[in-house]
Amino acid sequence: MELVRGARPHGRDKLRSNLIEWFHWLLREAEMYDVRYPVKGAYVWRPYGMKLRRNVENLIRQLHDEAGHQEVLFPVFIPYEYFGKESQHIRGFEKEVFWVSKGGEAGERLVLRPTSETAIMPMVKLWVQDYKDLPLKLYQIVSVFRAETKMTHPMIRLREISMFKEAHTVHVDREDAERQVREAVEIYKKIFDEMCLAYMVNKRPDWDKFAGAEYTIAFDTVLPDGRTLQIGTVHYLGTNFTEVFEVTYLDADGSRKLAHTTSYGISERSIAAMLITHGDDGGTTIPPKLAPIQVVVVPIYYGEEELSVVMSFVREVVNSLASGGVRVYLDDRADKTPGWKFYYWELKGVPLRVEVGKRDVEKRQAVVTRRDTLEKYAVGLGNLVDAVRELMRAVEENLRKNAWEELRRRVVKAEGVEAAKAAIREGKVVEVPWSGDNECGMKIQELVGADALGVAMDADTSVGGYDLRDLACRDKRAEVWLRLSERY
Amino acid sequence: MELVRGARPHGRDKLRSNLIEWFHWLLREAEMYDVRYPVKGAYVWRPYGMKLRRNVENLIRQLHDEAGHQEVLFPVFIPYEYFGKESQHIRGFEKEVFWVSKGGEAGERLVLRPTSETAIMPMVKLWVQDYKDLPLKLYQIVSVFRAETKMTHPMIRLREISMFKEAHTVHVDREDAERQVREAVEIYKKIFDEMCLAYMVNKRPDWDKFAGAEYTIAFDTVLPDGRTLQIGTVHYLGTNFTEVFEVTYLDADGSRKLAHTTSYGISERSIAAMLITHGDDGGTTIPPKLAPIQVVVVPIYYGEEELSVVMSFVREVVNSLASGGVRVYLDDRADKTPGWKFYYWELKGVPLRVEVGKRDVEKRQAVVTRRDTLEKYAVGLGNLVDAVRELMRAVEENLRKNAWEELRRRVVKAEGVEAAKAAIREGKVVEVPWSGDNECGMKIQELVGADALGVAMDADTSVGGYDLRDLACRDKRAEVWLRLSERY
Repeated sequence: MELVRGARPHGRDKLRSNLIEWFHWLLREAEMYDVRYPVKGAYVWRPYGMKLRRNVENLIRQLHDEAGHQEVLFPVFIPYEYFGKESQHIRGFEKEVFWVSKGGEAGERLVLRPTSETAIMPMVKLWVQDYKDLPLKLYQIVSVFRAETKMTHPMIRLREISMFKEAHTVHVDREDAERQVREAVEIYKKIFDEMCLAYMVNKRPDWDKFAGAEYTIAFDTVLPDGRTLQIGTVHYLGTNFTEVFEVTYLDADGSRKLAHTTSYGISERSIAAMLITHGDDGGTTIPPKLAPIQVVVVPIYYGEEELSVVMSFVREVVNSLASGGVRVYLDDRADKTPGWKFYYWELKGVPLRVEVGKRDVEKRQAVVTRRDTLEKYAVGLGNLVDAVRELMRAVEENLRKNAWEELRRRVVKAEGVEAAKAAIREGKVVEVPWSGDNECGMKIQELVGADALGVAMDADTSVGGYDLRDLACRDKRAEVWLRLSERY
Repeated sequence: MELVRGARPHGRDKLRSNLIEWFHWLLREAEMYDVRYPVKGAYVWRPYGMKLRRNVENLIRQLHDEAGHQEVLFPVFIPYEYFGKESQHIRGFEKEVFWVSKGGEAGERLVLRPTSETAIMPMVKLWVQDYKDLPLKLYQIVSVFRAETKMTHPMIRLREISMFKEAHTVHVDREDAERQVREAVEIYKKIFDEMCLAYMVNKRPDWDKFAGAEYTIAFDTVLPDGRTLQIGTVHYLGTNFTEVFEVTYLDADGSRKLAHTTSYGISERSIAAMLITHGDDGGTTIPPKLAPIQVVVVPIYYGEEELSVVMSFVREVVNSLASGGVRVYLDDRADKTPGWKFYYWELKGVPLRVEVGKRDVEKRQAVVTRRDTLEKYAVGLGNLVDAVRELMRAVEENLRKNAWEELRRRVVKAEGVEAAKAAIREGKVVEVPWSGDNECGMKIQELVGADALGVAMDADTSVGGYDLRDLACRDKRAEVWLRLSERY
């Protein structure tokens, strides 16, 4: 493998200056997703996007299965009677729920699930008899519905979230449920690691937790314009749902006890974050393990006689990659130029491109271009599969490294209001001193003009020995750093 | 492989005498599907059922992908304005459509898709420019919704059909669209062949075609109580939808032409048919290729000292099967007897059971029992993987053979009304002489007291040289045989 040309990656100016506009451009031009469907916040997955999505779904499914979760499928309809049982839950979701009515009739009172705690609990009550049935770890990948009044964005803010993986687990006690919360956090880390995403793990402040949860742990990533995007949440629900649905179990000592539950969710937002994080003004780079096409082969020839020579070697190249287990696609369209094809496949994020021209045939080699850096390597046919595997690993590592470097650059500390506001203006996540008091925390949000993400679970949160004051309540000693940012 | 005991399969009396009751029993006891969800016609897939369903979905996906279809995903919501565009379509579906209303507000007029022609056509109009974009072959696997007023049945008659595979294809002309209809019929045959189902292919009479179709071809299977179940349909839609949605393309000659479309659907009904067709009073047999567990291993021992000897050999058996690519499960529960486990796994339809007792360890063999026939074979460890593969093939072939024999026994001809009524009473599909006139056909339904399935496409439909009269209209000469049955 010989480096033919060094890196000259695409810029990111368009991407940074108007991220949402850039994302619309990417989805349209890469033929992944169509926003022209005539219902607000409901969009169409096109074949190329759907293949990518299936790969992400399979990753999610595999990691949940390996950790002992079982896949189920519950109905979309939830009787309002059940939906309204848990008072915090209904207060949180009532305004954004879609109602169903049978053609004109005043029939049952049904809602479309915005999340499935209240659909699953009545069945769990039937399934769980005694402590041997616990823990019970279920998940499903489904559409959920939220009547957003805010502006909707493709894959990011939807009225039909069509790839909602929701896990629901049931446990004998708080200790086991909180162990599950930690397991869920580890599963999500693995998912995002495979997607080459960088993330913060934040314990959401009380006023922003899931409706019905004791507490919520959220994964936030930072997009290239400095705003954060929540890409996953894990909730400890305590006995809030098991009390109202009477989910009890017979313990070993013969007594009947209330179960404790958790739930955790992830959606197509993670795919949006992946496409944007690895995006540039030429398109995006899809992490090789998740890419529908890992290697695109582009033959380069002039005239009929070169065609047959080149194509015969190209077929050797394609066969060699395919039999090496690489997802390879041959773009042999005669009515498109090589340059047009380069542009097309860079847009679509195919991680490696293999070019074969007449001179390559003579040398029995191919030229491999990395999508992320646009570095080019000449590789002999005999080493091609190994080189492609090595370059795919390198692309993956580079995407992950860049994502983490960008995120780390974005998180700063500020001890005063002006410094905090300046950091937000510069597109940073800012950490400010906080007493832990809810009212002070909400005041901090107002003062800084940004949203509180909560307290870091992935770093030392204590202010340590410093004698810092709460940013909003100067009479209070600060205990922890509160993270704030602009959010999508 | 040595036959230890001949066949003594379970009976089918319970199954035949009350099929729906038996099906409820199977789904509950085999822990596949829960009908206790508190919304009519909306049920829950439990983990074991879900695994089976995933295998069926993957089969459907694979066969559609191989035939050049591309998977997409459209929203659940359809604007009523679009849904109502095709007049036959809206007339057919209007009564059974669910409406959506945002929490109390009088907002958009949205319906939940009962099928997606009217969601897909507006987007196809945007995607199709010229003849080079055709044919376009799309499919999705989604939930669709029908406000059934009839009695609902698990997997069979639902208000949320949660595994609706709907394909939608777009073509330059009638000829290419009808070629696609034939391709769809072949794909469906392959799917049902893999599910070991027997089927009739019937061209539905005009009065029973899909709302908006030029004609409908249906797959009907016969259940063990003699009633038929529609398990798949293929529609030629002509230009009915492309006219109202203005789906045109630029042809090679520079003229703009209307495209022709087809659609074809299959649902979890096919899984119901599979479980019932291969069912008996002990449970069911799942075709080995689709079974979540292909082989269950049951150790048999008395006392602690046998336990360790048996278990050590059992682990060899399990490893050998697993490394042979067999989906094997070891049931090593200490608190259940072997007899209990036999009953349990027969119920769940696991195609092969492997028993290992102390004597088997001495002979380094295992006893393999076929679920369908309950025949037992002694097999040495060295031949186990090969024997299991051969027996799985034998189970599959036997299920398919039995299904086809049963179906062929059920289809009879009758030339008079009384004979036709008697055949229906005996649980037969009856073929009677028909002129082809719609009014006469509907009269035949009344006279015989059964539903017309249509005209066979899988047999000679012509009455041939016989001078037969239409069963209802005696003044008319019969041209074809009309199939009738009781239907689910």
